[in-house]
Amino acid sequence: MKRVVVVGGGFGGLYAAKALRAPDIEVVLVDRRNFHLFQPLLYQVATGGLSPADIAHPLRSVLKRRRNVNVMLAEVVGLDAKGSRVLLADGELAYDSVVVACGAENHYFGHADWQEHAPGLKSVEEATEIRSRVLLAFEAAERASDATVRASCLTFVVVGGGPTGVELAGALGEIANHTLKNDFRSIRPSDAKILLVEGADRLLLAYKPALAERAARDLATLGVVVRTSTLVDAIDAAGVTLRAGDRSERVGARTVIWAAGVRANPLAERIAAATGVTLDRQGRVPVTADLSVTGFPNLFVIGDMAQCQGADGKPLPGVAPVAVQQGAHVARTIIARLRGETVGPFRYRDRGSMATIGRARAIADLGFIAYGGFPAWVTWLFIHLMYLVEFENRMLVLFQWAWNYFTWNRGARLITK
Amino acid sequence: MKRVVVVGGGFGGLYAAKALRAPDIEVVLVDRRNFHLFQPLLYQVATGGLSPADIAHPLRSVLKRRRNVNVMLAEVVGLDAKGSRVLLADGELAYDSVVVACGAENHYFGHADWQEHAPGLKSVEEATEIRSRVLLAFEAAERASDATVRASCLTFVVVGGGPTGVELAGALGEIANHTLKNDFRSIRPSDAKILLVEGADRLLLAYKPALAERAARDLATLGVVVRTSTLVDAIDAAGVTLRAGDRSERVGARTVIWAAGVRANPLAERIAAATGVTLDRQGRVPVTADLSVTGFPNLFVIGDMAQCQGADGKPLPGVAPVAVQQGAHVARTIIARLRGETVGPFRYRDRGSMATIGRARAIADLGFIAYGGFPAWVTWLFIHLMYLVEFENRMLVLFQWAWNYFTWNRGARLITK
Repeated sequence: MKRVVVVGGGFGGLYAAKALRAPDIEVVLVDRRNFHLFQPLLYQVATGGLSPADIAHPLRSVLKRRRNVNVMLAEVVGLDAKGSRVLLADGELAYDSVVVACGAENHYFGHADWQEHAPGLKSVEEATEIRSRVLLAFEAAERASDATVRASCLTFVVVGGGPTGVELAGALGEIANHTLKNDFRSIRPSDAKILLVEGADRLLLAYKPALAERAARDLATLGVVVRTSTLVDAIDAAGVTLRAGDRSERVGARTVIWAAGVRANPLAERIAAATGVTLDRQGRVPVTADLSVTGFPNLFVIGDMAQCQGADGKPLPGVAPVAVQQGAHVARTIIARLRGETVGPFRYRDRGSMATIGRARAIADLGFIAYGGFPAWVTWLFIHLMYLVEFENRMLVLFQWAWNYFTWNRGARLITK
Repeated sequence: MKRVVVVGGGFGGLYAAKALRAPDIEVVLVDRRNFHLFQPLLYQVATGGLSPADIAHPLRSVLKRRRNVNVMLAEVVGLDAKGSRVLLADGELAYDSVVVACGAENHYFGHADWQEHAPGLKSVEEATEIRSRVLLAFEAAERASDATVRASCLTFVVVGGGPTGVELAGALGEIANHTLKNDFRSIRPSDAKILLVEGADRLLLAYKPALAERAARDLATLGVVVRTSTLVDAIDAAGVTLRAGDRSERVGARTVIWAAGVRANPLAERIAAATGVTLDRQGRVPVTADLSVTGFPNLFVIGDMAQCQGADGKPLPGVAPVAVQQGAHVARTIIARLRGETVGPFRYRDRGSMATIGRARAIADLGFIAYGGFPAWVTWLFIHLMYLVEFENRMLVLFQWAWNYFTWNRGARLITK
C-alpha cells in the first residue's frame, strides 16, 4: 500500500484525490478547511447573490464513497522533502508521493498595510467581509448629513482589471443601479461611483483586445468608470491615491477592494528551502514536465502554486482548468509509476476562458470563437453550473440566478460579523 | 405627520411596521442588524441544513415598497420616556409613539462564565459558531488517538428541553446517525452520544404530556438520551457536571449547547428606569391591556420583551405568533387613536404550537387536535414555509428540505471563522 498525501482541497487537490483510484494506493487529503470552495463564484458571495454554502462543499461529503481517501483537517506548516514527510502543526505524515496544491493568496506587492483597508477575495470570510463593507457603506451614506462624507460612502474602488475585478465591479454596478433601487429614502444608490483601476492600458490582459473592449463597454452601461494605465500609490481608511502618468489624484472612498494580484501560498517558500529550487516573482515553485520538483520525483506541485510552462513557453495562468487538469495528470503519473509504466509530459488543453459582467452579459473566448453579450453569459452560466461539485449546489445556484435575473434581487445581503 | 419609531426588526417590530399604514404616519424602524431573522429555523443553520441567508431577509428589501417606512441601521442605547426620545449610540430620535420589540437574549442564570463553553442560539453568528463546534468535534474525534478524548469529542450536551433544545438534539441525532454516516474512516459518527438535559420532570413543558412523550420516543429512535429532572451544576471546557436529586455526575463533553433560558433584551432595564415599572424574573416589561407601559400611553413594548397576561392569567410565551399579533395590534391602536377611535384590549389567538424532531417527525397541538409523526412534520413544514417572509427564501428552504429529506445530506456543513 503506497501512501499519497495531497495537500489542499481546491481544484488541483480535489481532482488529484478523485483520480487517485487504485487498489494499492491510500490517499490522505489534508486541508485546514473542511470544504472545497468554488472560487470562481466567490464574487457572488461578496455581492450578496449567493450564500457561502452554495459554492462550498464539505470535502468529506464529496469523497465519502472513495474508501481509499482519508480527509484530514490539519494545518500543513512545512515539508521534509528528503525524509518524505509532510509537517503538520500538530504532527507529521510520511508519504510515498506528495501533491502540493495550496493555491494562492492576495499579494499587496510590499504594501502589507493596504490589506486592512482593501480586502481581497480569496476566502469565504473575505467575501462576507467585503459584503458587509459594501452594505455598510450604503447604510452610512443614508445617515450621512455631510455631502463629502456621503460621496465617500458611495464611492467604491476596485483595484485590478482582471476577471475578478471586472466581475466584482459589474456586480457592484448592478447592486447600485438595480438591486438597491427602492431600498433607501435619503440617497439614490445609483449615485454610487464605482471605479475600476487597472495599471495596464486595458482591462483583461489575458483576453483578446476586442473582448476586453466589449467588457469595458458593458461595464460603462452599468455605471462603472474604468481607469486604465492608472497605478495605486496609497490606500488608507479615507480612500486611495491614484497616479496616471505624472498626474496624481486623491479619491475619497470608504470601500476599496483588492483584485490586483495574488502570489503562491507561503508553503512554496518551505518547498524552496527544502529542495533548493528558486521561486518565481509570484512565489511559485518551478516544476518539470511531469509537474514534479527537480530532484524530487515524488514531490508534485500543481495549480496556482506551480510555475508551469505552456506550449507557447509562457507560464500557465492561475485558473481552475489548469489546476484540474494538473491534478488528474499527477494522479495518472503516480498510478502509472506503480505499474512500471510512464505517461507523457503534462500538456494543458486550453478550452477557453470567460468572464461575466453584471447580470446578463459576459465575454467568452473558446479559441475557435470569441463572443460577448447574452450568449456568452448563457455559456458562462452553463459551464459554471456544470463544474459545481454537487447537484444540490447546482440547483441552489441555478434557482438563485434565475431569481436574481428576473427580480434583480440579491437575497444574501446580510451584514454579519 | 406623526412619527412612530419601531425598535427592532424581529417578528413584533416588522409586523408592526408593516401594519402602520396610514397617510399621516411616518415610521422609522431601527435595528442594529440589516435583516429580519426567522429565528424558529435558526437551529437548521446551527446544524448545517440551511444557510443564514435562507432564513434572513434584508429589512430594506422587505419594506422597500412602504414609502412611509424608513429603515435605520443603528444601536438603541436607551429611552427618554418623558421626553419621547429614543437614544441611539450616535444620536437620538424624537417620536410621537414608540414600539419597543428587541426580543430576548440567552440567559445563564448568573453563570456568565458558561456562555463561552455553551453558546446559545439567538443570532446568526451563534448559529454558525455552534455549527463549527459540532463539525470540529467530529474532526477532532477522527484524529484522536486516546479513547477518552475521542469519547469526549463525540459527546454533545444540549441543555434545556424546550422546543429549541428538542429540535437541536433531534438534528444532531440525524447528523450523527445519517448525514455523516460514510464521512469518516477512524470513527463511526453513530457512536456519538447526544444528551438532552432538562430540569423539569419532562420535556416540552408547554405541550400536552402525551405529545411530549411522543417527542421523547422520537428522540430515542435518533439516539438522543433524554435526562429529565436533571440540573446543570457546572459547565467548563472539559464538560458538564449534572445533578439529579442528590446524585452528581461528571460528563466529559467537548460540545455543550445552551437552550435553557432567555431573558429580555437589556433595553428593558432602561425602560424600567425611565418609567418606574418593575421587570419580571425574565427581565420583561409588564404591559397594560393595550400593550403600553403604565403611565406612558405612547410607549408600547411587545414580543419577548413584554410580560403580557393571557386569557388564563398566565404570561404569554415568547413565541413568534404572540409577537406578530402584538405588532399588528399596536399598529391598529396607534392608527385608531389618530382618528379619535379606540380598539379593544389585546387578545392572543393561540392557533397552536409545534416542534420538529429530526428529519420527518414533529408534534403539533392545534388546540382542537393534537398529533405527532409525519403528518405533524408536514404541518410544521408548511406553516414554517408560509411564514418565511419572501418567496425566494421559501423556495430555497423547500428545495433544501426536500434534498435533505431524500438524501439525508446537509450541504451547509461549513466550518467558518
